[in-house]
Amino acid sequence: MAHAITPRSENFAQWYQDVIKEADLAENSSVRGCMIIKPWGFAIWELVQKALDGMIKETGHENVYFPLLIPLRFLEKEAAHVEGFAKECAVVTHYRLETNSEGKLVPSPDAILQEPLIIRPTSETIIGEAMASWVQSYKDLPILINQWCNVMRWEMRPRLFLRTSEFLWQEGHTAHATSEEAQIETLKMLDVYDDLARSYLAIPVIKGEKTENERFPGAVHTYTIEAMMQDGKALQAGTSHFLGQNFSKAYNIRFTNKDQQQDFAWTTSWGVTTRLIGALIMTHSDDEGLVLPPRIAPHQVVIIPVIKKDDSPEDMVAFCTKIRDDLKTLHWNDQPLRVHVDVKPSSSQDKFWTAVKKGVPIRIEVGKREMDAGLLSVSKRTGPSKERVSIPIQELSSFIQDTLSQIQETLLEKASTFCNTNTITVSSLEALRDVFSKDETHSLPFVKIHYHPSADQDTSVQETLKALKISVRCIPLDNTGQDGICLFTQKSTSQEVLVARAY
Amino acid sequence: MAHAITPRSENFAQWYQDVIKEADLAENSSVRGCMIIKPWGFAIWELVQKALDGMIKETGHENVYFPLLIPLRFLEKEAAHVEGFAKECAVVTHYRLETNSEGKLVPSPDAILQEPLIIRPTSETIIGEAMASWVQSYKDLPILINQWCNVMRWEMRPRLFLRTSEFLWQEGHTAHATSEEAQIETLKMLDVYDDLARSYLAIPVIKGEKTENERFPGAVHTYTIEAMMQDGKALQAGTSHFLGQNFSKAYNIRFTNKDQQQDFAWTTSWGVTTRLIGALIMTHSDDEGLVLPPRIAPHQVVIIPVIKKDDSPEDMVAFCTKIRDDLKTLHWNDQPLRVHVDVKPSSSQDKFWTAVKKGVPIRIEVGKREMDAGLLSVSKRTGPSKERVSIPIQELSSFIQDTLSQIQETLLEKASTFCNTNTITVSSLEALRDVFSKDETHSLPFVKIHYHPSADQDTSVQETLKALKISVRCIPLDNTGQDGICLFTQKSTSQEVLVARAY
Repeated sequence: MAHAITPRSENFAQWYQDVIKEADLAENSSVRGCMIIKPWGFAIWELVQKALDGMIKETGHENVYFPLLIPLRFLEKEAAHVEGFAKECAVVTHYRLETNSEGKLVPSPDAILQEPLIIRPTSETIIGEAMASWVQSYKDLPILINQWCNVMRWEMRPRLFLRTSEFLWQEGHTAHATSEEAQIETLKMLDVYDDLARSYLAIPVIKGEKTENERFPGAVHTYTIEAMMQDGKALQAGTSHFLGQNFSKAYNIRFTNKDQQQDFAWTTSWGVTTRLIGALIMTHSDDEGLVLPPRIAPHQVVIIPVIKKDDSPEDMVAFCTKIRDDLKTLHWNDQPLRVHVDVKPSSSQDKFWTAVKKGVPIRIEVGKREMDAGLLSVSKRTGPSKERVSIPIQELSSFIQDTLSQIQETLLEKASTFCNTNTITVSSLEALRDVFSKDETHSLPFVKIHYHPSADQDTSVQETLKALKISVRCIPLDNTGQDGICLFTQKSTSQEVLVARAY
Repeated sequence: MAHAITPRSENFAQWYQDVIKEADLAENSSVRGCMIIKPWGFAIWELVQKALDGMIKETGHENVYFPLLIPLRFLEKEAAHVEGFAKECAVVTHYRLETNSEGKLVPSPDAILQEPLIIRPTSETIIGEAMASWVQSYKDLPILINQWCNVMRWEMRPRLFLRTSEFLWQEGHTAHATSEEAQIETLKMLDVYDDLARSYLAIPVIKGEKTENERFPGAVHTYTIEAMMQDGKALQAGTSHFLGQNFSKAYNIRFTNKDQQQDFAWTTSWGVTTRLIGALIMTHSDDEGLVLPPRIAPHQVVIIPVIKKDDSPEDMVAFCTKIRDDLKTLHWNDQPLRVHVDVKPSSSQDKFWTAVKKGVPIRIEVGKREMDAGLLSVSKRTGPSKERVSIPIQELSSFIQDTLSQIQETLLEKASTFCNTNTITVSSLEALRDVFSKDETHSLPFVKIHYHPSADQDTSVQETLKALKISVRCIPLDNTGQDGICLFTQKSTSQEVLVARAY
């Protein structure tokens, strides 16, 4: 069954698509760039949502919902913001359809909007407008809100989960009385994302600040978590922005401070998207299909009845159901275990490979022999697929709990080792060229270099990066701050950045 | 504080708006017809979602996500469907903005979509298209899916929660191998909605079938739950549709049945929306503000520190926090108690009225005296606001649990009594005219009448109903089926319907 998946070494991009297809996570829709997220993919997203939503509320934020459509004039108010998003906006111009004289359904010429509306690419503008009316005094601050919703950024080269015109995300928006408070908030939410990535998705991310070129349109500082995929490319997995007073000045979020002076609020915004599912796939999965960290696996354990010709299917299913029900009373990581009995009318062989391709962490196969002996045949998604261990039924509970913990840890460790091993430092432009001139079948590294701040606005430097098809991913927050020579400008600088090829 | 709310007897519509404003549930946005759902309103919606999502999964459905945008040609395929929705569709025609020669931001004339896209008013069309590709054999059926999302139906006379151009909902879509199975599904989900309304929202709804005129565009049967608001008007609170083979024929959802014959699938769809919040408000709230059934109250208990001049605020807040933390370890209705300490820098009087206006079921006021005596001052949102009982701290837990149960039950009973008392039967057109010719300040009843099926297509009957500003709400499922004379056509019929003025 696993042969339907192209090996990573052969064609990584095709492998990615194959994993999605074979795990039945999502598919392209008839609307260009917009995907259909199928039950298994959506169940993973729901688990990510649940984990993150808890953390967002734990840090004092409340959920809200703002309109999908944004008037053009809102967008225009922040110059950098409109510049950044205008080219990707889907525009609503009519509010009715009619059948024309040829019997064709068309937008009604009598129902043209006086002002076109755009589908939100992000909501700083419409939320800024509302915050302005909510805030009068420092007593009204901070405002700490978040929404889970769909957004639209027209995409010319769509790829499932990684780049889709419509995607799902959460966007947090906060307003504060002081710059310090807003900066603390920005980094606090970056830490929340880091925690989500590591603790749930088992993705070791690198926290860093974006350089000027890569900042969110309208932000003063943009922070990112960057993850290394198995082909060595970087994937930006979440961002948190300190917006300074740029948006509060554009939308007039003004308040009376403690000294009775008028001031503009300091705002932040931060978001992660369904792209995380793409990151998840490319971090852990293998040539047999999806691999899921147990904490975000919709089924952590699948029980497969192996029914032979002379067996009683009813007895077997009843036995499996009993095991499931017993396991479901257990907790792992403060959640009830998620256990599934596969009773579909397909062969046990098919069920086994379905569980493999869908990344279910633990499989239990139950045949007549196992039933009679009270000895279960257990295998792990992260072990060799043919390797089974026999577990006495009375030891199953603790074995499952321990094994899930061990899988969760191992996945993070393995990915961390991979990322660390493939992160190198180079100190000359020739060395950098060397690294990134290899053909696409080689796994690429993250490369740490000294990079003078002025290089970001230097056209020739940017052209060199472009020619190597790499970009500055971030200034890691854990930099040592040691001086060195910028590879491009030859200026001395303490600023080190990570460069990489990126998704 | 409560004086900011117009009494129901004076102006019910204004009262409704005032309750929303004073409870800070939602507000109008700058985009006509689109609302901003604020933290308190959204927290209620999240609790409704959580309850319903559990029931939807419990009945075997899986969540998915389909694209927001739908190609025009999809809509065209089902004639009744397009007829029903064309007049309310927001249309996307461009995918980029640009700055024109006058420096104005406009939809780019170079980025016109070849085929306009509509924002989903509902998703039967795009889901039908996908199902067609998923189903080959009866073994692929049933398909049982659901999505939580935003939809858009352009609204000329918007009202918060009740009629908004954009609203949030869940839409379930299923496909089955037989008509019987699909019909069972349709009624099963109607029962789920009935259960949600009664058990969580404490709204006693009437289950019934819509007559032909009121059917969902494209449905064979539409079932509804209808609720009576305090002004006696009906509110359609949820619908479940048996679509027969109409959509499967339009979208070619075809399969090989057990007899190796080609057949079209039988489909259903069903949904409830943020309108439920409107129903909730108009069922339970009073002239002091919102009243919330405990099961969907974001805070079930609020603790208010009453700090006087010589008191130590730290001690008081610590004492309140301790009570909160103790209560939060308790469960009520299988959920941890939701308890809040109001530590805002406002007066205890203000906090008290805030809790009243927001509908928090139980308030605990804690002053120095209460702290010293270990005797807490507890009041209920559903009792007279000035009525407090003193509860020894060691009895608090059981008192709270019992009181929440009692409030939940009482709200349903009270609303049921109101609905039953105000449901009458009339047997002549004159009597019907009498009932609905009273001025708007009177509370209106639901009226049960005999109504021959042919009356639905009789223009003069429909004009009579329109003149009385009433509509046929449903054919209740619990009708006795006794024969009678249709008020309008004078024909003998066993069909009884409820008519009412409606939202």
